[in-house]
Amino acid sequence: MDFAHSPRAREYVERVAGFVDTEIIPREREYLGALRGRADRWAVPPLVGELKARAREQGLWNLFLPDTRHGAGLGVVEYAPVAEVMGRSLIAPEVFNCNAPDTGNAEVLLHHGSDEQRERWLEPLLDGRIRSAFCMTEPEVASSDASNMEATAVLDGDEVVLDGRKWWSTGIGHPDCRFVIFMGLTDPGAHRHRRHSMVLVPLDTPGVRIERMLPVLGYLDEPYGHGEVSFTGVRLPSSAIIGGPGRGFEIAQGRLGPGRIHHCMRLIGMAERALELACRRAVSRTAFGKPLANLGGNRERIARARIAIDRARLQVLHAAWLLDTAGPLGALGQLSQVKAAVPAMAQEVVDMAVQLHGGAGLSDDTPLAGFLAAARALRLADGPDEVHLGVVAKLELSRHRERP
Amino acid sequence: MDFAHSPRAREYVERVAGFVDTEIIPREREYLGALRGRADRWAVPPLVGELKARAREQGLWNLFLPDTRHGAGLGVVEYAPVAEVMGRSLIAPEVFNCNAPDTGNAEVLLHHGSDEQRERWLEPLLDGRIRSAFCMTEPEVASSDASNMEATAVLDGDEVVLDGRKWWSTGIGHPDCRFVIFMGLTDPGAHRHRRHSMVLVPLDTPGVRIERMLPVLGYLDEPYGHGEVSFTGVRLPSSAIIGGPGRGFEIAQGRLGPGRIHHCMRLIGMAERALELACRRAVSRTAFGKPLANLGGNRERIARARIAIDRARLQVLHAAWLLDTAGPLGALGQLSQVKAAVPAMAQEVVDMAVQLHGGAGLSDDTPLAGFLAAARALRLADGPDEVHLGVVAKLELSRHRERP
Amino acid sequence: MDFAHSPRAREYVERVAGFVDTEIIPREREYLGALRGRADRWAVPPLVGELKARAREQGLWNLFLPDTRHGAGLGVVEYAPVAEVMGRSLIAPEVFNCNAPDTGNAEVLLHHGSDEQRERWLEPLLDGRIRSAFCMTEPEVASSDASNMEATAVLDGDEVVLDGRKWWSTGIGHPDCRFVIFMGLTDPGAHRHRRHSMVLVPLDTPGVRIERMLPVLGYLDEPYGHGEVSFTGVRLPSSAIIGGPGRGFEIAQGRLGPGRIHHCMRLIGMAERALELACRRAVSRTAFGKPLANLGGNRERIARARIAIDRARLQVLHAAWLLDTAGPLGALGQLSQVKAAVPAMAQEVVDMAVQLHGGAGLSDDTPLAGFLAAARALRLADGPDEVHLGVVAKLELSRHRERP
Amino acid sequence: MDFAHSPRAREYVERVAGFVDTEIIPREREYLGALRGRADRWAVPPLVGELKARAREQGLWNLFLPDTRHGAGLGVVEYAPVAEVMGRSLIAPEVFNCNAPDTGNAEVLLHHGSDEQRERWLEPLLDGRIRSAFCMTEPEVASSDASNMEATAVLDGDEVVLDGRKWWSTGIGHPDCRFVIFMGLTDPGAHRHRRHSMVLVPLDTPGVRIERMLPVLGYLDEPYGHGEVSFTGVRLPSSAIIGGPGRGFEIAQGRLGPGRIHHCMRLIGMAERALELACRRAVSRTAFGKPLANLGGNRERIARARIAIDRARLQVLHAAWLLDTAGPLGALGQLSQVKAAVPAMAQEVVDMAVQLHGGAGLSDDTPLAGFLAAARALRLADGPDEVHLGVVAKLELSRHRERP
Repeated sequence: MDFAHSPRAREYVERVAGFVDTEIIPREREYLGALRGRADRWAVPPLVGELKARAREQGLWNLFLPDTRHGAGLGVVEYAPVAEVMGRSLIAPEVFNCNAPDTGNAEVLLHHGSDEQRERWLEPLLDGRIRSAFCMTEPEVASSDASNMEATAVLDGDEVVLDGRKWWSTGIGHPDCRFVIFMGLTDPGAHRHRRHSMVLVPLDTPGVRIERMLPVLGYLDEPYGHGEVSFTGVRLPSSAIIGGPGRGFEIAQGRLGPGRIHHCMRLIGMAERALELACRRAVSRTAFGKPLANLGGNRERIARARIAIDRARLQVLHAAWLLDTAGPLGALGQLSQVKAAVPAMAQEVVDMAVQLHGGAGLSDDTPLAGFLAAARALRLADGPDEVHLGVVAKLELSRHRERP
Repeated sequence: MDFAHSPRAREYVERVAGFVDTEIIPREREYLGALRGRADRWAVPPLVGELKARAREQGLWNLFLPDTRHGAGLGVVEYAPVAEVMGRSLIAPEVFNCNAPDTGNAEVLLHHGSDEQRERWLEPLLDGRIRSAFCMTEPEVASSDASNMEATAVLDGDEVVLDGRKWWSTGIGHPDCRFVIFMGLTDPGAHRHRRHSMVLVPLDTPGVRIERMLPVLGYLDEPYGHGEVSFTGVRLPSSAIIGGPGRGFEIAQGRLGPGRIHHCMRLIGMAERALELACRRAVSRTAFGKPLANLGGNRERIARARIAIDRARLQVLHAAWLLDTAGPLGALGQLSQVKAAVPAMAQEVVDMAVQLHGGAGLSDDTPLAGFLAAARALRLADGPDEVHLGVVAKLELSRHRERP
Repeated sequence: MDFAHSPRAREYVERVAGFVDTEIIPREREYLGALRGRADRWAVPPLVGELKARAREQGLWNLFLPDTRHGAGLGVVEYAPVAEVMGRSLIAPEVFNCNAPDTGNAEVLLHHGSDEQRERWLEPLLDGRIRSAFCMTEPEVASSDASNMEATAVLDGDEVVLDGRKWWSTGIGHPDCRFVIFMGLTDPGAHRHRRHSMVLVPLDTPGVRIERMLPVLGYLDEPYGHGEVSFTGVRLPSSAIIGGPGRGFEIAQGRLGPGRIHHCMRLIGMAERALELACRRAVSRTAFGKPLANLGGNRERIARARIAIDRARLQVLHAAWLLDTAGPLGALGQLSQVKAAVPAMAQEVVDMAVQLHGGAGLSDDTPLAGFLAAARALRLADGPDEVHLGVVAKLELSRHRERP
Repeated sequence: MDFAHSPRAREYVERVAGFVDTEIIPREREYLGALRGRADRWAVPPLVGELKARAREQGLWNLFLPDTRHGAGLGVVEYAPVAEVMGRSLIAPEVFNCNAPDTGNAEVLLHHGSDEQRERWLEPLLDGRIRSAFCMTEPEVASSDASNMEATAVLDGDEVVLDGRKWWSTGIGHPDCRFVIFMGLTDPGAHRHRRHSMVLVPLDTPGVRIERMLPVLGYLDEPYGHGEVSFTGVRLPSSAIIGGPGRGFEIAQGRLGPGRIHHCMRLIGMAERALELACRRAVSRTAFGKPLANLGGNRERIARARIAIDRARLQVLHAAWLLDTAGPLGALGQLSQVKAAVPAMAQEVVDMAVQLHGGAGLSDDTPLAGFLAAARALRLADGPDEVHLGVVAKLELSRHRERP
């Protein structure tokens, strides 16, 4: 049992944390001003390019990838604290080319893409020249249950034809978004884990249409955004099917496991920053003749937030370690636990920090309001908390079925 | 002990509820579309005028006022269920000319305004021709403690001069907003309840400047909005001081008591509508082969929401009844209780309903995301929950000081 | 809408409260000492007889009965605040001859008993000369679902034969306990609401055997106790069946409705006393140089307890008023709400008071530890919280089934 | 980062777990029967001696001691999972000679005792021939604040004279209890961390009197018990002062750190067993035609319990690892975190398991009721939760004092 990070992990944490705290956080306000001040909100403020270049120069690039060719050779448990510090700012993940859903899409292409797909789409993605989206969730059905999926990816000779409507396709509004990965039903008669396919769809393919951009609690999250997208008779060569027909479910499982743990790692960092802001407010703001820290239950709330964050971090690290040592199946229970618990923890900690800030916490004068929307959304984004709780319960009860 | 509403109250509830459910709710989407579709988001969609005219025609107008000349002669406890049904839609209060902060401002002018103020500002306000705002909270200090207030309203001969910066001035973005009520420090040497004055400030007075509009989570709440406003050497005749110098605190106390109980009444209606939407979703949406109602803890969550709403309503009614029978001082404890507890209850119920809706709950496809932002904001808007809990605790402990 | 109690109710509240505070509470320690000091813990300390005589003399006797012949003619909503003040002391209900399960048994006999049963068992019960128990719950099945019941009450000619095992028969250890009401299956083929019978069983009938007394946490609750009782071929004339065969379910429904609302009323009083003790402790005990009231989140906890109690009381009163005005069926939802929520509220408030008392709160130096055990038990005693939540959810969802 | 236990720790966990599950748990009922069936409840059922002998034979003895002479050479983080499995049964710690407060007392004597004290008291204690108690908490003051302590240990020539009243001296009722460690004020004028002394007091010293045994929620916890003890002019040679005068605070700090972490480790095991019992009940008990697992929110409760336990375990392990690698001061924050959070977690999980068991959970037919009392008591026993939260908050806020 050893709770110390590897020297390599510690080194990357230090460098990324330094970059976030000295290069990114001080420019958050400028970023927001640039974004809000333009005629076109769906453009990327130039400072992002600057920061990306600098991060890349320093080798802080694609750190989510465990191989040493593209990334830094960090295992999941080593990447966890690095991702955590990226979570301190909503802008940071992009700067290090580590933002969702591009990371998940990159992993899919790396592991399951054809050479051509890797060359044409993966390389520019890892270069940070293009962005991507993932089209799985559908508006008309409860997408927490994948068997509900109604969109189709039907084989027709050498081609695959896509039809259906997706939403919450995050990143699709980005000016550099060039492709999406689409998931659809290919063979309704196959085993339930072999029915779906994942298809790489260039965004400019005829029949693909962004119907509208969806707000999250008032935020459109420009310049990324969350789109509702229709696919109408979209035709692609069948080579666009990633890994071949019927492998969508299998690929998705692999994609979502680490995917949401990345979210959880970043949520820890977000909660840390919220607590930090809360503490600064608590010691610097005065009411009724006392610093807020000494009013009512504020100290206990701060203590409970510290406890909640620290234990969530330990859980995420444990799940990450299981991913490294036992694989996604061996980590299933702990992964479901963090998916079920960490977004709710972050929502609670951020909500507490908002409350300590009064009105300022609701506006965009601090990052807290944006954090609150983000944490709230992540209680749904990779399946609702309740679905993950269901998995945890199922595993737990299965250990007791046979006993009298 | 009689939990039945008066026949008059029941009649108004029925009429207002009918109006809300048949005239307003079916047009919410149209309203939102109109608002979002315009070049100028700070304009009022025409359907509001239509609905206002129809409501007024039916005598459903200014019902918050207890006198029979302007309102319908409803006591606070009679108005409570009427306000509740208005709370079912964020658009409804305006339609019945019962929205904050106009209601509170109207009460201030009715009780404390001069004849001239009443004629010039109250009449058009009660007619629904103009809107108003209230400028109390300040960005630089913890406004939950009124003694922190830094803005000034200094007497200078026959004039009063206003300086300072206010924010969260709700409604100030409305195109018909014509005046604000400003609160500032007049005499720092006076008794702490006699230091402040309230001043009626026409919005076009030189020196008044709306610096920016503040978002709540991501919502600007157009066409009302929440403004940050600077007052720089704003000069007005001293007759603009409502009720005379030094009476600001006293008037504010009277204003905020019923004021936030109106919010609480409406929050009950908001929570009811959220629960209604949650139930409909729970019985109509299917996942894993079952309606959501039969998955996980959803039934218990629905039951707990029902209990939470029903008891919050009883508390609000009880506080309202105390306002009617024992006055604001006699109702202080119960008022503080509902202020402390009802917004948090509404936030929780709405959050549950959002979760049951999945992504749809976060977007504006249902009113839930807007409700969530509104409920969250009301945990701060009339003083944070914690300040009201402090009052409740103080009253409770004061009953035990003397005992050994 | 009128939240004031009737003059009659107010008068009884005042008299009972006075009696509890001046006659009973000051003798609690003596009572406990007497109980613990005796060789036989299952004997009644003599002061109980004294107090009962005095209460009866003052007409504070059988107040739970709404008729004026035996009781004081108090409706359910009028009795509620009276029961509340009785709840302030665990000894009080017996003193006023208003303790469970005698009250429920008395109501059953009053409404459904034969003249002979009323004369022989009801009269001494209402006189306080004998005590009784109720035998419904069974150890081997989930008794929250009445259809699980396995005990039988089989007709055999002019006789009824009882077999089975019951537990949690409260009061059966009392030296004056003379009869139990037993519920068993008579006709498995009948409609599910017509299968069971209630039988009046003198405790000395052959075949009735108290197997053991059950602790609640560590309390045996002497001299009442909770028994596990076996019935083996217990023969009685069929006239012992209350109201005739097959009416058990119907009678139980009527019995349990008001029954648990009595518990809820008393729990309000218990929570009030716990809060009172907590406040006294908070203002009189010092740590780290401050009264406990000013440490950590104690004030907020006290405020939240006050809110929780006040709203629980309103809910209980509302349910009681519905029982008076709309009958048990009309009150079903609100009854289930209070059954689901009030014991948990009381547990929480008492637990908070225990925590504020430190070790003293766990011992019997205050009534809090006993309160905690009692409140905890009442989350199960009339069906677990979850069953009542299930009823609330069912009613709520049933309003939305038909809508699209 | 490595979450795997050392091979040595894994081996001991396996052996102790095997012993607990096959030798101890199957005899819990016999133990309880033996205890309850005797005239003298303060005698040790003979099976305890048997089990102790067998455990010692197998080398499962004094495992809490890190040195290899007495114990097994386990570090704190290695002992944690061993203590956890001991926590599965309230009888187990004694069987392995690892029960509180003997463990803490042994550590005090080992590190600070004189050779004579070690020979006369430590050896038989480590042999399991005698038991001991710890006398710190006082009835008249808030003992969470050590500076409140009123008992005195005054030097008088070659002697030390003890006066005062202590309570919650756990284990003092045990027939083999031979000595207590007493803490008292020696020099009120010294630095606040040098005022107190710890004195080893043979239980038969004149002037020591056990006034009464205190129940915890009805449980006397025989044959250990919790005593209220008076010390009246108790005279001992000054060599009885452990480590010399004025070192009481320093020794207590060292004693309580690991001490309560032992409690926390065992609470994890207790919660595990409660969850295990809950799951078995959930899959084997039927109501309304379904196993309890499929009713209401039971699955979610089980999932939340699993999450709560797993993260509490990680926190305890992390704190233990810090104790091993950074010492008590370096572990202060994490120790306070587990002290604040783990007992409350255990109380909640056990309470849930009780609820799933219905009445059976309240009686002693399962270990759950005893667990509930124990977990509840541990929210106070080493200082209330709130005091530990205060430490956590203080550490957190101290990081932000200097920033603007």
